[in-house]
This record gives sequence, structure tokens and C-alpha cells, in this order.
Amino acid sequence: MSDNLTLATDLYELTMGNTYFLEGDFNEQVYFDIFFRRNPFGGEYTISCGLYEIINYIRNFRFDDEDIEYLRSLGAFPDEFLSYLKGLKFKGDLFAVPDGTAIFPNEPIITVKTDIIVAQILETALLSYFNHGSLVATSAKRITHEAGEASVSEFGLRRGPGIIGGTEASRAAFIGGCCSTSNTYAGKLYGIPVSGTQAHSSIQKEKTEEIAFLKHAKANPNNCLFLVDTYNVLKSGMVNAIKVANEYLKPNGITFRGVRIDSGDLAYLSIRARKMLDDAGYKEAKICLSNGLDEFAVRELKRRGAKFDLIGAGDCILSPNDRVGGVYKLAAVEEDGLIIPKIKISGTPDKTTIPGYKTVYRIYNGDGIALGDVVALYDEIIGEDDYPLVHPLELNGRKLGTDYYVRKMQEPIFLNGELVYDIPSIFDSQAYCEREHKSLPNEVTDIIKPKKYPVVLSNQLGQLKKNMVGEYLGNIDGHGQYVK
Amino acid sequence: MSDNLTLATDLYELTMGNTYFLEGDFNEQVYFDIFFRRNPFGGEYTISCGLYEIINYIRNFRFDDEDIEYLRSLGAFPDEFLSYLKGLKFKGDLFAVPDGTAIFPNEPIITVKTDIIVAQILETALLSYFNHGSLVATSAKRITHEAGEASVSEFGLRRGPGIIGGTEASRAAFIGGCCSTSNTYAGKLYGIPVSGTQAHSSIQKEKTEEIAFLKHAKANPNNCLFLVDTYNVLKSGMVNAIKVANEYLKPNGITFRGVRIDSGDLAYLSIRARKMLDDAGYKEAKICLSNGLDEFAVRELKRRGAKFDLIGAGDCILSPNDRVGGVYKLAAVEEDGLIIPKIKISGTPDKTTIPGYKTVYRIYNGDGIALGDVVALYDEIIGEDDYPLVHPLELNGRKLGTDYYVRKMQEPIFLNGELVYDIPSIFDSQAYCEREHKSLPNEVTDIIKPKKYPVVLSNQLGQLKKNMVGEYLGNIDGHGQYVK
Repeated sequence: MSDNLTLATDLYELTMGNTYFLEGDFNEQVYFDIFFRRNPFGGEYTISCGLYEIINYIRNFRFDDEDIEYLRSLGAFPDEFLSYLKGLKFKGDLFAVPDGTAIFPNEPIITVKTDIIVAQILETALLSYFNHGSLVATSAKRITHEAGEASVSEFGLRRGPGIIGGTEASRAAFIGGCCSTSNTYAGKLYGIPVSGTQAHSSIQKEKTEEIAFLKHAKANPNNCLFLVDTYNVLKSGMVNAIKVANEYLKPNGITFRGVRIDSGDLAYLSIRARKMLDDAGYKEAKICLSNGLDEFAVRELKRRGAKFDLIGAGDCILSPNDRVGGVYKLAAVEEDGLIIPKIKISGTPDKTTIPGYKTVYRIYNGDGIALGDVVALYDEIIGEDDYPLVHPLELNGRKLGTDYYVRKMQEPIFLNGELVYDIPSIFDSQAYCEREHKSLPNEVTDIIKPKKYPVVLSNQLGQLKKNMVGEYLGNIDGHGQYVK
Repeated sequence: MSDNLTLATDLYELTMGNTYFLEGDFNEQVYFDIFFRRNPFGGEYTISCGLYEIINYIRNFRFDDEDIEYLRSLGAFPDEFLSYLKGLKFKGDLFAVPDGTAIFPNEPIITVKTDIIVAQILETALLSYFNHGSLVATSAKRITHEAGEASVSEFGLRRGPGIIGGTEASRAAFIGGCCSTSNTYAGKLYGIPVSGTQAHSSIQKEKTEEIAFLKHAKANPNNCLFLVDTYNVLKSGMVNAIKVANEYLKPNGITFRGVRIDSGDLAYLSIRARKMLDDAGYKEAKICLSNGLDEFAVRELKRRGAKFDLIGAGDCILSPNDRVGGVYKLAAVEEDGLIIPKIKISGTPDKTTIPGYKTVYRIYNGDGIALGDVVALYDEIIGEDDYPLVHPLELNGRKLGTDYYVRKMQEPIFLNGELVYDIPSIFDSQAYCEREHKSLPNEVTDIIKPKKYPVVLSNQLGQLKKNMVGEYLGNIDGHGQYVK
């Protein structure tokens, strides 16, 4: 494995690159957008992530000798093109929203402006990191928000997509609000706090549960959180935990951190366990619950009055059952110094792209609550006046009030190939993500029947799209095909 | 990023390790099994994968100075334990089914025998690779089988879990039957055939579709498969493809490989496109279909008489919406040279583990069709006589006929820490996986309402489990808790 993953691109990017090279188009400047079409998990928001990995990928972007020799071995590329690839660098601009940003369908999240061959090669890695990071961060934000005052520790590497994919996911999960990870490698690599105490196997292997707790406490006096569900939570696990706390922890001045329950009726058991802890004088001891919990299970636990301070979550964060499905589409090309918008028409109207070199603005009310986003041409000035907005899909006219302020969402990350972005610490990204989430209306972030967040096109962009669609628009036949 | 990913383990493995070390238990030999409880995608079989990555992980298993310093910085581990970790090696045995094997719930897929601290540390990485690889290989096998005579090319990196996770998935997808990958890095790393021609952006950026096809053909004469759905498949894309074939490919002796349709009503469009190709004399030209296809979409295409030679699939293989959910459970410990079986009792009966140092046998009829699997103790001799089998969950007695032969499924991978397994080529693994799939009854491999494949316990093992469950068995209360 090497830091240089430049070759991790779809072959067709190189096949197209070869065409552009032979046709002499290699200096053509193009604009590509990453956007997505549907929020995952039945929600109405998504948390953007993966920019960190994208930055690393681009900084290491170069075809080394081994890569070139491999490509030569395919017999598909002429030597001139391979020589050209060998000297290739990223010399363009990249604009993106920071990791942890709340994002919505159909708006440009990442915009790349560079020469066409590089722009094509970047597609695959950028999408892969964006899609993966954003899915994980979104899932993490959903469950951490649902947990409320309780913390959520991410335990998911064993269900993650291999070590590296899983470790990248641990980072996104932390940005999404998890308080720690079980993944020690992620701890080392990113400085994420790590946590973990004991598994059932460590109880099973001892003669009794009490002996297992005692041995754990002696070896790990700073980490006395006992796993109490190996046999029977209330009649065995809790009894032994409290016994070891009374007979060993307390006399030795060791803090009884608490207990973890990993099976059974968690709501019922946690209520009873809380009472046992309180009655025994351990009001500070925490209860950690785990067992395939997701945001809906956490909500149900709360509804039933479950008592918990910590949630351990794995599957729903590291192996989420949904997709972000981000795509990378040509938005414009430069010809003779002019930016010429491009559109991809589809028989399914919401698959028709928004043309042009664009950016995205978020409009907040006076209380800092986001009202909606405006996708605009890159050089449009938004927010100076009240103005009519146009919905990108339905093209309904809308009006905005007057008490608002406007924020440009994308930041410059690379300019002329140089990294101009200060990568925030993961702690700053986590805090930023939390502010982002708080800035959304509750009805948008809710996990059950949330309300759609408005994303509209600016006047100019709406008109541009209308005109460009109009050029193609005729009838759509019964097979999803446009007919002029 | 380094080849040494030893630290990619859950912190609690190390916390427990610390306990075992301080208690002097570090030489204790233990037996852990990886198994899973439910086949993904509503199917009744799973394809095992990830062993290749597991072997690499174990071969590179060592804590380096950086790892130790990181662990020291946590302030949770005494120096003696950290020194011990520094010298730690895998000196045990690992038995596993080869990548590409058809596997079923509740049977031991991978069995590790080693000293307890190493055994715990291995858990996380082994599960991560097994769960990820097997999910991808299973999805790939399902769609490639459904495609029948048509080939399936894996196009999924952009929807994969980052570059490394996605590249590992490309390998599993190839073993699961994909004919090629779009991931050029996977091509270089593993020798998987790579494929890809052109994207919509390459059509959009040209003045006309015809010019785009022509430029592509001139630059890539060996790869003339045109993407025909940018504007209108039948009225534009197919017309231009055939025009370029007639006017440029044929006169220059270039093969017209075919067309790809990536949107619209694929069944209808492919039937019409086939006719256009045939009428124009291009009976050899292929039709490739793509657009979020999975095994069910492929079946529907066939039902409607769609004409295709190739499927491009991404999402369903690289970002499957399900989990394998493999777990790693203590099966036995050695005490004074004796192997003492261990069991984890659960209030949910099918979460109770199967105790003991085990292996798994598959029973085939005379035609080489698998009839069922027998999980047995490692030293039991299976297959010499007809014998009653016991179902692991329901404990129903079953009888087997006489015309059968028996295969031991797990192979030795490491013995005494040494790799003793010849890693097959990916082509051999792919062919093996195909034979595995063919050996299963059709009713088991069907994607709609498949029939359950029998996995039973040997007599001895059934009795052992019964006895051990009996020790715990009393009543289960309403909260999923055993009461003696």
C-alpha cells in the first residue's frame, strides 16, 4: 500500500483522457460539481464528510513509474499519453463545504475547476470519499442527536469495510458527534479519544463473573466499567458488579465507572440496573447500552424511560444500510476565456443537471436558523435585496422575507493547485457539525416524517436552466427518452 | 498509511489483554470461531471472502515503536504489558474456508487457536475483513448468476467505502464472478482485468454526439463501445454509433465493440438497439446495460426480453444495503492440556453459541450437489456411516441417506504461526466460487423465496451443546434473561 492512490480511478477516465490528449484538448478548462439527489435514512439532511481524504488524495496526485508501467501493460494507451500522465499534476481550483456541513440534494457540494484530463481522473476518488464519509457522518449525527445528553461511542470497526475504510469511517463518525471510537488505530492516526473495557469472552473464560470483574479491576483501575449481561443482568451481572465495587473498588479508592448491558430488554434492564446502582450508593456510576442500536432504537429506549448515559453503536454507523449516491457532473467548459454552461438532460426530470459554474448560499433568519439554500452562478451577488427564488425541480416562484443573512457555503480548498485551506482539527470539525445541526429547523432534522428543506435556484440560474432545458424539451416518450 | 495495521483493534481487546497479562494468563490457549447468523439480501447462502486480507494482516502482525508509544500515551497500560506487546507474534493456528466458498449461518467459517491476548487482538480485523469481503462477494455472485450468459463488469469504486475499502471490494467482486473492474488500482494491485470506455461528460463536451464517438474511436481503436444515452438512445445515440461504425470503424478495420445504455427503459431500448445493430450488420456488437442494476433488476430485464451481453454494476456490489454480521466467539479454552468447551447463553436461543473446538463438513450426493453441512467437534470422524443429525437450533432428529460423500470445509491457513496455505490466484478463486455456487441446489441459490440449506450438529456436538445449555437452562423471564 502506498500513499499514492492516483491510479484509483475508473479506467474510462483514462480512456477519455487519452482521447482529449490525442485531440489536443488537454488544456481545456472544465467545471465539475459533486452533488447528490436524495438524503439517506429517510431524512431531510445530510452531513458532508470525506474532504480530508480528498485533500490527501489530491496532494499525493501523481502517476509514478509503477503506475505508468502498469498502464503500458494494458496495451491501450500510446506512449505519448503515458508520458503526459507521468508529468501530470493538479493545477486547478477546488471549492468545497467543510467536513461536518449540513448539505441538501441538488446543490453543488464540491466544485472542481481544472484541465479536463485531471478533472476526469479525480472523479472516482472524490466521489468515493464524499459518499462514504458523508453517509457515516450523517448516520453518526442522527444517532448522537437522538441520544441527547447521553454520549455515543462508536464501536463499529468489526462491521466496517475493512481496516482502512473502517478507520476513515471512525473519523467521519467522530465529526458526526460520537464521543470516542473503539478503533485504536483511528485513535493513533487522528487523535480520536478511544474507549473500551471488556467483552463477554473475558467473563466466560473465568470460573465466575465476580472473578472476571475483579481481575479486570485490578488490571485496569481507571476503566472499571463492567459488562453485566453474560449470564443474567439483574440477578448476576449487577450483583457481582456492585459486590466488586463494594469490596474492591471502594476500599482501594477506585472509581466505579459503571456497567454495560449488551442484550435483553435494554429499557427494562437499565431502569432496574439504575435503581440497583443508586440504592447501593453509586449514583455517579454510568450505564452504557449497546446491541445493534440505531437512532430509532435510541428514541424507543427514551420513550420507555430507559436509563443510560452512554450508547455503544457500531452497525448503524460503520455499515449503514443506505447510500448517499453523490455524482460528479460536468457543469461548464471554458472556450476562448468564456465559461460555457453544460447540461445533462434526463428523461427523469430530477436527473437533469443544473448547468453552469455555480456556488451555493444559505439564508439564515435573525436567530441563526437556516431558511433555505440558493444555488447561484459563481459571480452572482445574493442577499443584497429581497428576490424571487425559483425551485430547481418544480420551478414554482417563491418569495423570501427581509430579516435574513446570507452565507456562502463552499470555501476555497485548492487554488491553482495549491492547498489554501487550513484543515480544522477533528474537535473543531465536530463542534462545527454540531452547530450546523443546531442551525437547521427541528422539523428538518427530525428522524420521523421530517420536512423538506428548501433548495432553490437563483433567478439567473433558474432562467439559464429553463432556457437550456427548453432547447432540448419536446416530448418525453414512454421509454424515458427526450424527443426534440 | 503503513502495511502494519496491528493497532486496528478495539481498545477493549487490549484492556482485556492487559488483564490476562497481569494475571499471568497470557499463555492460555483459546479457540475462537467466526460465524454469522443470517444470510444477506434475503438469500439462503453467503460467499465467504476476506481471507486474503486476513492473511496479510496476520503476516504483518507486530506492534511497532510508534504503536507502543501511542498506547503508552493513553496512560492506561503498565510498561510491562507494553513491553510484552512489543514482542508479540502470532504463533497459533488458523483454519478457514477458502475465499469463494459457499457458507451458511451458525457454522464455524474461521477458527483461531492461539494464546488469549493475540486471539483477542485479532478479533476486530478478522471480523472486519470477513464481513466486508463476504458481503461484496455474495452480492457479486447473486448478480453474476442472475446475468447468466451475460458478463457483469464491476463499476463501483465511486460508491465504495473509500479507495482502499473499495479496492478490497473489487477483489471480492471479481471472486464473486464479475468479469472485470473499472478500478484501475485494483487492476494493478490484483491483476483483475480492467474495463471502461466513456462517460456522458465526454459526449456533452463535444459539439455533437457523432464527433464525440469519432474522437473516442480515433484515440481508442481497441475499445469502441459507445455510450448512446446522452440525448436519445434510438434517435440519436444508436444512429450516431452506427454511422461512426459505418464511416470510420469499418473502413479502418476497427472492431465495433458495441454500445452502452445507462438510462431510460433498458428492456425496451435494448431490444430496439439490438435490432438496429443487427439490421446494420453488426451482429457481433455487444449491448452493455447499466444504471443501478442489481440481481432483481437483471431478472426483470430478462423477463421482459431485454437484449444484453454485459451488465455494468456498482451500487449493489460496492455499497450493498445489507450486512453479513459475522461474530467472533470463544468456543473453548485449554486447561492442563485439555480442551474445555465454552458456551455463551443468550435469551434469544439462536444467539446461544455452539460450544467446543469445531470444524465443519459438507455432505454431497453422488452428483456433487451439497445436501447439508455438519458442524462437528474437531476430532470427530464424520461420514463413515449413516448417522443421525441434530439440528443446531431446533434440536430435531434427522436421518441421512447412504449415497453421499463428505468434505472437510476448513483448511489449515496458519499452523504454529507459519503460513501453510498457498493463496490461490484470483482467477482460481473465481472459478472455485463458481463451482461452489453450482454445487448448491437451485432452490437454495434462488433470489426469490429460496429454501433453507440444512446445517446440523453432529451427534456428539449436539449432545455437548444440549448438556451445556441444560446447565443454564431454567426459565427465560420476560426480559430476555436466563434464570437458573
